[in-house]
Amino acid sequence: MFILINLKAYPADPVAIASAAKEVADASGARIAVAPQAADLAAVAETGVETWAQHIDPNDPGSHTGSTLAEATKRSGATGTLINHSEQRLRLATIDATVQAAERVELETCVCANNPAQIGAVTAFGPDAVAVEPPALIGGDVSVATADPDIISNAVTAAAEVNAETAVYCGAGISSGDDLETASELGATGVLLASGVAKADDPQATLNSLVEPVSWITLSSRVSFSFSLCSGYQLLVIRFLYPVHTTIDILLALKGDVLALHLP
Amino acid sequence: MFILINLKAYPADPVAIASAAKEVADASGARIAVAPQAADLAAVAETGVETWAQHIDPNDPGSHTGSTLAEATKRSGATGTLINHSEQRLRLATIDATVQAAERVELETCVCANNPAQIGAVTAFGPDAVAVEPPALIGGDVSVATADPDIISNAVTAAAEVNAETAVYCGAGISSGDDLETASELGATGVLLASGVAKADDPQATLNSLVEPVSWITLSSRVSFSFSLCSGYQLLVIRFLYPVHTTIDILLALKGDVLALHLP
Amino acid sequence: MFILINLKAYPADPVAIASAAKEVADASGARIAVAPQAADLAAVAETGVETWAQHIDPNDPGSHTGSTLAEATKRSGATGTLINHSEQRLRLATIDATVQAAERVELETCVCANNPAQIGAVTAFGPDAVAVEPPALIGGDVSVATADPDIISNAVTAAAEVNAETAVYCGAGISSGDDLETASELGATGVLLASGVAKADDPQATLNSLVEPVSWITLSSRVSFSFSLCSGYQLLVIRFLYPVHTTIDILLALKGDVLALHLP
Amino acid sequence: MFILINLKAYPADPVAIASAAKEVADASGARIAVAPQAADLAAVAETGVETWAQHIDPNDPGSHTGSTLAEATKRSGATGTLINHSEQRLRLATIDATVQAAERVELETCVCANNPAQIGAVTAFGPDAVAVEPPALIGGDVSVATADPDIISNAVTAAAEVNAETAVYCGAGISSGDDLETASELGATGVLLASGVAKADDPQATLNSLVEPVSWITLSSRVSFSFSLCSGYQLLVIRFLYPVHTTIDILLALKGDVLALHLP
Repeated sequence: MFILINLKAYPADPVAIASAAKEVADASGARIAVAPQAADLAAVAETGVETWAQHIDPNDPGSHTGSTLAEATKRSGATGTLINHSEQRLRLATIDATVQAAERVELETCVCANNPAQIGAVTAFGPDAVAVEPPALIGGDVSVATADPDIISNAVTAAAEVNAETAVYCGAGISSGDDLETASELGATGVLLASGVAKADDPQATLNSLVEPVSWITLSSRVSFSFSLCSGYQLLVIRFLYPVHTTIDILLALKGDVLALHLP
Repeated sequence: MFILINLKAYPADPVAIASAAKEVADASGARIAVAPQAADLAAVAETGVETWAQHIDPNDPGSHTGSTLAEATKRSGATGTLINHSEQRLRLATIDATVQAAERVELETCVCANNPAQIGAVTAFGPDAVAVEPPALIGGDVSVATADPDIISNAVTAAAEVNAETAVYCGAGISSGDDLETASELGATGVLLASGVAKADDPQATLNSLVEPVSWITLSSRVSFSFSLCSGYQLLVIRFLYPVHTTIDILLALKGDVLALHLP
Repeated sequence: MFILINLKAYPADPVAIASAAKEVADASGARIAVAPQAADLAAVAETGVETWAQHIDPNDPGSHTGSTLAEATKRSGATGTLINHSEQRLRLATIDATVQAAERVELETCVCANNPAQIGAVTAFGPDAVAVEPPALIGGDVSVATADPDIISNAVTAAAEVNAETAVYCGAGISSGDDLETASELGATGVLLASGVAKADDPQATLNSLVEPVSWITLSSRVSFSFSLCSGYQLLVIRFLYPVHTTIDILLALKGDVLALHLP
Repeated sequence: MFILINLKAYPADPVAIASAAKEVADASGARIAVAPQAADLAAVAETGVETWAQHIDPNDPGSHTGSTLAEATKRSGATGTLINHSEQRLRLATIDATVQAAERVELETCVCANNPAQIGAVTAFGPDAVAVEPPALIGGDVSVATADPDIISNAVTAAAEVNAETAVYCGAGISSGDDLETASELGATGVLLASGVAKADDPQATLNSLVEPVSWITLSSRVSFSFSLCSGYQLLVIRFLYPVHTTIDILLALKGDVLALHLP
């Protein structure tokens, strides 16, 4: 599960939150990124945390005063960018051009959209990920778990129909570890958070409480067993599936009364 | 004469140009600032050169993903910002709000506009400076010296009628030391440059050639003499007027056959 | 007092309101105009009421799909246009260009703005009128009479300092005849109304109640007397000042016991 | 083949062109529509020609000064609207909302886009038609026949993959009957024209020359034969396929030496 913390233009200290996120990510193994304002990118990247831009302009280098280009964003230390966030909606052709601009410098991309139809539409531009932001959940206190969850699963389906490789994130309605699990169960492989962390009294504690279910509860609910026979051995593989795209396999091999255990 | 180098979104190395500008400013005493993209502000400010933003958003802190606020701009090390550049034209109410946002964190402001009527209009919002960008000169090779110069002097008049304290810069048509002198003679107290420096093979040499007339030619053309009698002394003050808001006075005092010379 | 009814995009029937406004204007002598959506201009103009556009585009004729040009607006029967309404804020340079586009076909212009500083700014572009829309009054139920009235009188002053010939309208906070009188006393010579008429159960009755004070109360409060002697006659001129730019003079001439009365 | 004439903001007389289009449509049986500026919709619709808007706003009725709503557009007599024309590019979410606004009042919709990826994206919103406007062809003299034609056929494929019922129009590069045929052969079932008609010295003659191949050349190249035996008769059906969605069948029945001909 990828956790992207969008600092928006909140009055929070971006470096303090970035440092906290870096510590939680290192301690838990979870993938956590922080997206500050453009002028704060360099300071955030310097903490070592995975750094994303909130927005980049679609232009090629040239006479575009006031633009923030993919090149400058990359140079500042960022490795990814949001595109078409609900607070920064773009023209269709601009989304297309911005995805291409990000690819030009190998920035990872996540295009946001309102509903399954729009998610299907933006997946056509080939971003690495898409994030569905149901308008009913944006900026509110409604949790994705209590609101109509079909919009997430329908977005997962809509994206998969266009390109099965595109990751789908849940872009709104996440403020607790439970929400994060719900999003995961609905098929999302990442979440966008904002005020839940950026306005928290203790961002690091909030991040820890978010990551806990990723590390533990999700772990225990994601064990798979496969059984096979091979050269007279009974083999049992217990696979622990982390949401963060890693697996741990424990192998038990039984032959007669000999039990061999292979730990990772 | 204030020299503001707008790096736009050119492919130039912002830190290299900033370092060159810093050296020329230090060596010549001229006031030179560099305006990079938002994501490059911190790296440019670290060179020690006066750093300006190309644009800031008018918002108060809050939920504004993709905005660059006055607060973040200030935090990055910038001390001023352009507003309403010809490549980033703003709504009237946004110009008003942006000037106020900059004042909130004490960023210096320069609002750009097309013609004397617009210059008069934006001066009403109380920025520190306004910059006139005649459309005929924007982005072209036409020099302010050869084009119709009335637009600059009319802009100076239009601004002065609204607020005599507002500095007026020449926002286009400047690429040489001669242009800089012409702008000064038309009443501008600063200039905006972009490609002339940012695309130069040797930006430092270009900057030196720009600053030279400020240091020398302008010097020789700006000498004033004042003569007086005081306690039996004949006093001659020779005042050298720098465009960069400094003066050097040399005092000759003659009584009988005694000549006293007072150097600065 | 000029009354401009902005129909916005309300679900009201534009032709019914236009017909009602035409009747009230004819019966009262008040100047009343109706501003419908662009696609409704022709139908509204056909009723004979003074017709204004809510917005025009600044372009010259050419390749601008989806624009509504001054030329097409004029052709549809409109004689004036709002510019920079609070729901259609424009870039500074666009306001400048739109005023010029309207002048190209002799459409009357009224540029809206938020506060006295902005009113001063837009007056510099030479529109026929400006309308101040204090943000606190826009779209709400607060009356201009109960809110801070200084913003109107300061806007009148700000406009007069730039161009004494520019009419100043009150663009928000008007829903009754009393508001209209207050606006008039604060120096406005016109008002913009929207929901007060467009959402009224009986728009014609509402318009009549608005116009009444213009016709009567304002009349009685606007009588002036001038007294003079001429060829042995004592002359008394009683002048009734209508807000709609007309005056009625009654002349009494007295000589000895002869009284002559001259009615208009 | 549907021919949509976009009058843009050209200085042409919209009523004269609409009348000419109406006559050619009536005489030829071809489907021809005219899209004028919003303020000209009523006058164009009055000629009886099929009338389209160039753009509508996505809003529901309400406080949206300067908007042109689907409701007002329909009321003026229009029956369809372009959306996201290359001169009026919209945000992704706005395209989605505008298609829905048009459906609210049963306006036919045609969403424009630049390339096959974008065509696939906008088809997801369920418009009646999409129009591909290759940037290389927009506003130029390059014909779709001489430029890379793959972009049209790829757009047809991209749309069909999302929704096979969506019509695909060729939105640029059309100025002659030959271009129209080429577009048809590439799979388009309609074309958008602008300057070719709107700036023509004799728009009616131009329209006739466009429609001619639709009526004749296309006819002769689109004959199909089907042969069958039925109750001792040899049946030959000669079907003429019009691009305008109509067919004409001629039936020849032969038995012994009896030939029966059935004309439509």
